[in-house]
Order: sequence, then structure tokens, then C-alpha cells
Amino acid sequence: MSEPTDEAVLGDLAETDILARIFPRLPGAAAAIVGPGDDAAVIAAADGRFVVTTDMMIHGPDFRLAWSTPYELGWKAAATNLSDVAAMGARPSALVVALAAPADWPVAAVESFADGLREACDALAPGCGVVGGDLSVSPVLTIAITAFGDLEGRTPVLRSGARDGDVVAHAGRRGAAARGLRLLFTEGVDADGHPDAERTARLRREQPLALAAQLAPEPPISSGVDAATAGATAMLDVSDGLARDARRIAEASGVRIDFDSAALGDDPVFALGGGEDHGLLATFPPGAPIPDGFRVLGLVVDGAGVSLDGKAIDPAGWDPYSGWDGSAG
Amino acid sequence: MSEPTDEAVLGDLAETDILARIFPRLPGAAAAIVGPGDDAAVIAAADGRFVVTTDMMIHGPDFRLAWSTPYELGWKAAATNLSDVAAMGARPSALVVALAAPADWPVAAVESFADGLREACDALAPGCGVVGGDLSVSPVLTIAITAFGDLEGRTPVLRSGARDGDVVAHAGRRGAAARGLRLLFTEGVDADGHPDAERTARLRREQPLALAAQLAPEPPISSGVDAATAGATAMLDVSDGLARDARRIAEASGVRIDFDSAALGDDPVFALGGGEDHGLLATFPPGAPIPDGFRVLGLVVDGAGVSLDGKAIDPAGWDPYSGWDGSAG
Repeated sequence: MSEPTDEAVLGDLAETDILARIFPRLPGAAAAIVGPGDDAAVIAAADGRFVVTTDMMIHGPDFRLAWSTPYELGWKAAATNLSDVAAMGARPSALVVALAAPADWPVAAVESFADGLREACDALAPGCGVVGGDLSVSPVLTIAITAFGDLEGRTPVLRSGARDGDVVAHAGRRGAAARGLRLLFTEGVDADGHPDAERTARLRREQPLALAAQLAPEPPISSGVDAATAGATAMLDVSDGLARDARRIAEASGVRIDFDSAALGDDPVFALGGGEDHGLLATFPPGAPIPDGFRVLGLVVDGAGVSLDGKAIDPAGWDPYSGWDGSAG
Repeated sequence: MSEPTDEAVLGDLAETDILARIFPRLPGAAAAIVGPGDDAAVIAAADGRFVVTTDMMIHGPDFRLAWSTPYELGWKAAATNLSDVAAMGARPSALVVALAAPADWPVAAVESFADGLREACDALAPGCGVVGGDLSVSPVLTIAITAFGDLEGRTPVLRSGARDGDVVAHAGRRGAAARGLRLLFTEGVDADGHPDAERTARLRREQPLALAAQLAPEPPISSGVDAATAGATAMLDVSDGLARDARRIAEASGVRIDFDSAALGDDPVFALGGGEDHGLLATFPPGAPIPDGFRVLGLVVDGAGVSLDGKAIDPAGWDPYSGWDGSAG
């Protein structure tokens, strides 16, 4: 993680000068045939297909600067998009990144953001890098990432392939990111309930692991390829909580997902409800080997929706339009 | 262009309900193997490579709602990104689109935005369509597009291939978009100089073609493939003005671009300075056939920078960080 090198803000420098400082910090992509700097990049896709996903993160509903460092924003933006690529059974190959930031944002913050992108790629998906981008000014800090992946000859793993009798398994953390978010909402705020950087700094010292799970998650990216290779019939990235995302597989596949509470730890309801861990929820044919890193959590059964120990549950999920206040901090 | 169907705003509906209204309006992509709705899309890339470019448009510096309709924003967002793909000598294959809009934005406006995307793809790059996206709430209307293209076996045309003796040619309009923008800045504003929807409505009746060139440009997308097939040595999308963009080819190629004023029409300086026409500026080897749609504007010569009739000029260009005020309207 880089230290700020000077006090310059975006509005002080021409775009080309800012990009000259950012580009060297971005991770290179092994698949880049033509990298950043032309009208477009050219990426290798030896498979004859490529996987693509896009996501936008907005200051307010998606993150708060009082809670997240620029480095963590870069890390999380990469990690969450890599996870969507992994959920197709693909190996992440490249990213393009658009960042819009206030004119008074420090150039050093953009550098830290780039460092977070690079270190997340290096740690989670070695060889994957940034092949293009865009830098703009906006009063609202906004990050848009598009990520690519290579199926390497495999069939993409969709949400719709789960079948009655399949085994339900999950790779990654369960509830850790939600625990971190709950801490931020209760102890990372001032007396009026607004996100507070000073209280968050103290919280980071007291609860580093819980906060890291929320602010810089480490999703099990390589488990996506492992699951596809093992014959996974369906898979998705768990961003809104196990129960809500399991319901998506259930709906797409025309089945029911039944979770076993004994497999979900001390607090099954919390494990089912907590979002943003970006683990991989997959279904495997009966008798298929379950790859290392996956834990069996239940079974695919005849029916619809999601159940716990056979009793239907109604997963209340997070909707980006409900309860949004957009306040600063 | 669709008519608003009801008064609902984004904040009234769940994201899934909004997407259910938007998806049917989006253009399908012939290259889509897996389309929208899963964690990621899968796109055909028979060439074994794909071209990718990304761009973000922010309300304030990049467009004003008092000037642009949502339909035009969708059209322009598609057109400008397709042009970057074309500038590599590729055929556009697919787009992903992230839109962040205020919670009080009408759902009907998002539908019109989707209509603009669809009709631009149909008109400019038939077969190209939207394969994924993201919808968020933000106080600042923000559009992020990533576009893909297929080189169909051709070598990508970079900015760096121009050689002394090459012919400089351009496809598309020259200065029309800048003329439209000048009209908006002088006559599409109120007494205080702020963008004004009522005055813009009158201006649309009086100067429809000039405004359309700025608000819904029709770049010559298929000319990109034509130029590559004819052996173009360098090419780029002209977004910041002929002179400034020619300088980019000159710098990347280590040459000088000399424009012939007689080829530039009645107002050569205006033709050289005006941005956002999104034409294609290309260089061709001596004696190569110049494809239909291109007009010869000058020569590549030994040296550096850009000149007009042999005299060096210093293209002052648009920089997104200079003179930005971010005011509403």
C-alpha cells in the first residue's frame, strides 16, 4: 500500500499527467496484445469466447470514504468483479476501470486506488491485469469495472443447471463481511449515526479481521475453475447473502435449495442472510468430487425457493433502491 | 423513440422490476452465447482476440439534461464507444452498460435511454447489442459503457503505424458537433448562461441538424473495417478535434501530420479544432486505395507535431479537468 507522495489534487493536473502517474501502478495483463493507450485494447481469447461482467460502485449506497480507504476501494472493486467471472467457471484475464472522482480528490488517492487494484489482482487472480480505463471528474466518487475471463475450453457454469439430487456447496466466508458491516454501522459512526473516520480508525485496531472481510474481501477466485472442472451444474457469486442468492439458482433451475443448519455454524440465520462475502455457491451432481475449499451446505430438492432443514424460508435481501439515503461520509 | 408510459420513478420500484422493463428494449447481440441475467455474459470471439474500450459520461462535464434527452444519451453513449472499436479496424460485437441515476429519475427515462442504445446499435453497427449491465442510484447521472469488437483476422490498426509519405484521410463530419455545441452554449442557455430546456427546445426546431450532430452523432462505424482492409497504417477516433487527435498519431508514430487547408472547407481552423464528431482519422500507404467515405486531408511528413499547409500549429484541446464547473442543468 503506497504512501501519498504529494498534496496535488485531480483538478491541479492535466488528465495525461495524472494517467502518467497511475499507469505504472496498474497490474499488467498476461492476455493483453495491445494494452492501454490506444483507442481500445486487444485481449487474447484463445478459447474463441470470453466472459464479461460489469459493475458500478457509487459513494453513498455502495461505500463510504469515512469507512473505506482508496486502496480498499481498488481492492474491493477488483475482487467483486473477479468473483463474477469466477462464478462462470472462468479464469479472470483482464479488467477495464473507469473512475470518476471529485476535482479536489488527491492524486495520491488515485494512486492508492490503483495499488489496491494491482494487489487484489496479484493476490486473487495472478496474470489478470488492467488493459484500459477512463478518468473523469464527478462530485460523486464512482467506480465502474468491467472484468473478463477465459473459459479455457470449459462449458460456462450458469445459474440454471441445478438438478434435484445435486449437492449444494459453498467456497469462501459466510457472514464475515456482514459482521464487518454491522460493526461499521454500529461503531464506525458518530453520535448522529453518520460514518465517522476517527471511530472507524479505532474500530480497525480492535476488529481488523471483521473490517477487512467487509472492506477488502478475499473471495476464492480460483475455486470457480475448480468447481467447473469438477462438473458443477450451477454456480453464482454470493453478493446478497446465501439465502437470497440460493433463491436465484432455485428460480433459474426450477428446483428448491435446502440448507442444512448443522453445516452453517453457530448462527445459521446470520450465515444465510449476510451479504458481500463474494463466496461461490455451487451445485454438484450426486457423487461428484467436491473440490477443496468448498463445504457442503445442503441439497437440491424438488420444489421451489429456499428452505432450512426442510422448512421454507423467505430470504429478505438487500435492494439498492430501498433504504438508500445517499448521505456523505 | 418511446413515449413515457407512466410516472414511476426509479425509487418506486425494485431493481428486478426495473430491469424487467428495460431488458426487452435493449438490442440483442449476434455474438452473445450467454446474454444478460447470469453473473457474467459469454461472447463469441472466433478471431481468438477481442477489442475492448471503456468510457464514462458524467452529468455536468460530459452532458446536460437540459440539452440532451435520455434517448440521445443512450444513442451517444453507444455511438462514441462503437467509434473507438471501429478505430482499431474492428467490427463492434457487444456492449455492457452501467447506468447510475437519481432515485427520482423516471423509469420511462431509462426506457428511452435503452431505446437510444438500441437504435444507435441498429443504425451504426447492426448485430452489435447489449450483453450485460448494472443499474444504480446516484445523485449524479452517470453512464459507463464498455464496448467490444471483432478483428475478424485483421491486424489491429494502432496510432503508432503512420510513416513519412503516407496519405492522411478522414471519414465522418468535421466541425458539425462543435457547431452544435457552440449553438447550445450561446442559445441553449438562460440569461445567466445556464443550460435551459425551453430555449433548447426552440433551438432544436431552428437548427435540428447542428444539434443532432452534437447530441446524437452518427460516426462512420463501418469505415473502420474498410480502412483496415485497405491497409491503413494508423487510425483513431476523432473526439477532441482533428488537430489534437492528429497530434496523437504524430506523437505515437514519430512523424508530422500536415493538413492541406484546401481540403478542410471554408473554415479550416474550425474544422481542425472542433471535437466530438467521432469521425475516423487514418493514414494510408502511398498508392493504397482510399476507401469510400474517406476524404484526403493531408500527408504524413518527416518531423513532429501537426502543421497546416506546412506551418506548425499548436492544437489547443479540451481537457476534462480544465474549466469544469459541474453545475446542474
